[in-house]
This record gives sequence, C-alpha cells and structure tokens, in this order.
Amino acid sequence: MTLSPTERTTIRRNAKRAGTDRAQLHAILDSGLVCHLAMTVDGAPRVLPTGYGRSGDTLYLHGSTGARSLREGAEGVAVCAAITHLDGIVYARSLMHHSINYRSAVVHGNARAVDSPEEKWEALRVISEHLAPGSWEHARQPDKKELAATAVIALDLAEASVKTRAAGPADDAEDIAANEAWAGVLPLRSAWGTPVPSDDLPAGFEVPAHVTDRKEA
Amino acid sequence: MTLSPTERTTIRRNAKRAGTDRAQLHAILDSGLVCHLAMTVDGAPRVLPTGYGRSGDTLYLHGSTGARSLREGAEGVAVCAAITHLDGIVYARSLMHHSINYRSAVVHGNARAVDSPEEKWEALRVISEHLAPGSWEHARQPDKKELAATAVIALDLAEASVKTRAAGPADDAEDIAANEAWAGVLPLRSAWGTPVPSDDLPAGFEVPAHVTDRKEA
Repeated sequence: MTLSPTERTTIRRNAKRAGTDRAQLHAILDSGLVCHLAMTVDGAPRVLPTGYGRSGDTLYLHGSTGARSLREGAEGVAVCAAITHLDGIVYARSLMHHSINYRSAVVHGNARAVDSPEEKWEALRVISEHLAPGSWEHARQPDKKELAATAVIALDLAEASVKTRAAGPADDAEDIAANEAWAGVLPLRSAWGTPVPSDDLPAGFEVPAHVTDRKEA
Repeated sequence: MTLSPTERTTIRRNAKRAGTDRAQLHAILDSGLVCHLAMTVDGAPRVLPTGYGRSGDTLYLHGSTGARSLREGAEGVAVCAAITHLDGIVYARSLMHHSINYRSAVVHGNARAVDSPEEKWEALRVISEHLAPGSWEHARQPDKKELAATAVIALDLAEASVKTRAAGPADDAEDIAANEAWAGVLPLRSAWGTPVPSDDLPAGFEVPAHVTDRKEA
C-alpha cells in the first residue's frame, strides 16, 4: 500500500519505510525548501534544484535555477520531483548497516503550464510563502511586467510516494554480541542563523517578526 | 567559461553565478551528504536521493534508496546527479527579487558498473567515509557476502557545472528608495545534534571521537 497505486510509486526495497498517508506527503513537501526536479532534455536525464510551493494537491514550481528546464517542463512533458529531509546519520557496528534517517517524497507526473493570471498569481503566492513566509504581505508584490516574465508550471500530486527512516541501527546479532563498535544515531538538523541586513538598508530598520521568528527549517 | 565545455554544462541564466574551478566542484561534493540522482526509467525521468563518495574525479554511488535505479544505472545509461547546499534565504524589498543563497553542482555522464573487487572496495570505502568519516576503521568492514550483494556505479566528473549565489538582495532602485520593506539574508546551516546511543548498546560504551567531533555538515 502506497500513496498511489502505480508501478513507479510502489516501493519494493525496504517496503516497510513506505508512507501511505497523504498528510505525510503534504508535511514533507511543506517543510522542505527546494525540490530536485528531473526531466528529459535532448534525450538525457537532467536534474536541478528548484523552488516550489503547494496548494492542495498541486505543486507549483518556477525555475529560478532552470529557465530552460522550465520551458521544457511547460510543454507537458514528464517530470519527477524529489523532496528530501536528512534527519541523522545511523552508525552501526558494521559498515553495511550504516544508514541515514530521512523523510523523502517523490512526485511523478506531466508538468502543466500555468497560463491563467489568477492561477499564476496564486502559484506565485504559495511559492513565495513557502520560500519566505510573511514576505507576500511585507514586500512589494509582482507587477504586471514581472508577472508576464515569470513562467510557472504545475504538477499534480496524484502520483507520489513517501519513504522515511526514523530508527536506530539494525545490526546483525553477531555484531551486537561482539560489542566492538559504537552504534547509534547522530541527529542532523537545519537551523536559521542571525538575520544579516542588506548593505543598502538604512540603519535602524528593524528586522520584521516573520524573519526573526521563522520556525525551524 | 564553465568547468566543462558542453552545451548542457554551460550556464546561461545568471551566468555570473557559474563556477569555473574544479576545486570548487570537489568542495561542494565533499561537503554534501546525499545527491539527487536522475535517470530515465520506462521512458520517464526519475530522481532519487542517494548516498555517494568521491575519489579523485570519480563519483561513486550505491543505492540505499534505489535498487532498481542502480541496476538501470549500471547498464551504462545516461544519468545526472545534483548536489545542493542551501545557505540562506534572501529577503528583498520585492517578491520577485527574493532568492536563495546556495552552492550547487550538477554532474552529467554515463554510469559505469564497478565490477572489480579492488575498485568496489575503494568505492565502498569512500562512500562510507563520506557518510560517516571514521567508521571505516571503527566498525566492521564488509565481508565477502556483503560485498557481493552490493552494487556500485561510478560516474566520471568530467562533465559538470557549478552554480553558487552568496550575496545580499539585488533590489530595483525604486524599491530601495521607497524603503518600505526589510531586506537581507537569513542564513541557514546544518548542525549535528547530540549522539543518541542505540537501545541495544551496553551502558557505558563511550561515544567515539569520530562521532562526537564530527565537523559541521
């Protein structure tokens, strides 16, 4: 049982790590920052990091790092997007049982170009609020020219898989009995640092709460 | 000028962000933890997070998260691997100038199956030392059976591109003059937490230095 019943979203290796809950998919997407977007360009696979946002069961992307890939994607071609959180390194008594604790989502589908001004506006809002929550109201919103210069694609979340590992090492009995190596998890987390004002910002401009109080990445 | 002269590694958008130094490529790879590996499966792009290691100008991968993709990759097919570090969110006065500070590497090539026992051993060593530096000497090394059950692919680093952004916001003059929004960078970093010993580890087993003293991710 996975989130969607297609062959490519049915997790076979370490199937116990497969997630089956759509809320879990949404949570992994919502707590990420960029996705890795793959598509076929000139017959070869290409993958690029790209910003995104989610609205319901639609993922919106606009390619600050891949203008060409975005044009290709806008033509309805097949794409695949992965969002990965690394939560810790799993140290086992044997090398072969070393592992990573992670939360990972993979979405498959055909990209759809977002053309209507209303949907594009909503897409840019969710992409913006995902990258920088609070900025949509605080900063200047896109004008008509900026809007026209921006390409946005949509990806339906219907076909997706989730895979997670959140556990200690799973060593072989002989290695546990030998007791010759340490075993455990070294947690990894992302943390925000202290905001650095822009050089051209007048002194005394207070850092707004949506930046200082941003919740953990 | 990029790291390699092919069309797909020539960065056109924000070309000033392109890296040209092979040492910079190595540094981005060496300080990452997983890559996102893309390949074509059943005619569609697929991307998965995968562990890796580097030896000289060869990237070695073994697919703890993608056994099928690894088999496909071992057949010499085209693959693409991206390694991305997110360093901060760039808050600008306008939404359209919001950005991300990052260091990103993308490698293109045809995967090569690693069959010789000597190269496979070296590949597993560098993958292991990349994931968990110090574990290769501390933990039990792979036995013959484990070695035979492990598939490793190699990817030449000849064709690669590097792109980085490490700067404050680049706002339009009118938005700077208006002075109506905060602008700056919220740094993002990864940090190790406190090691959590495995439940089945005898009390008093001291956490080894290669875990406690692991340098920043």
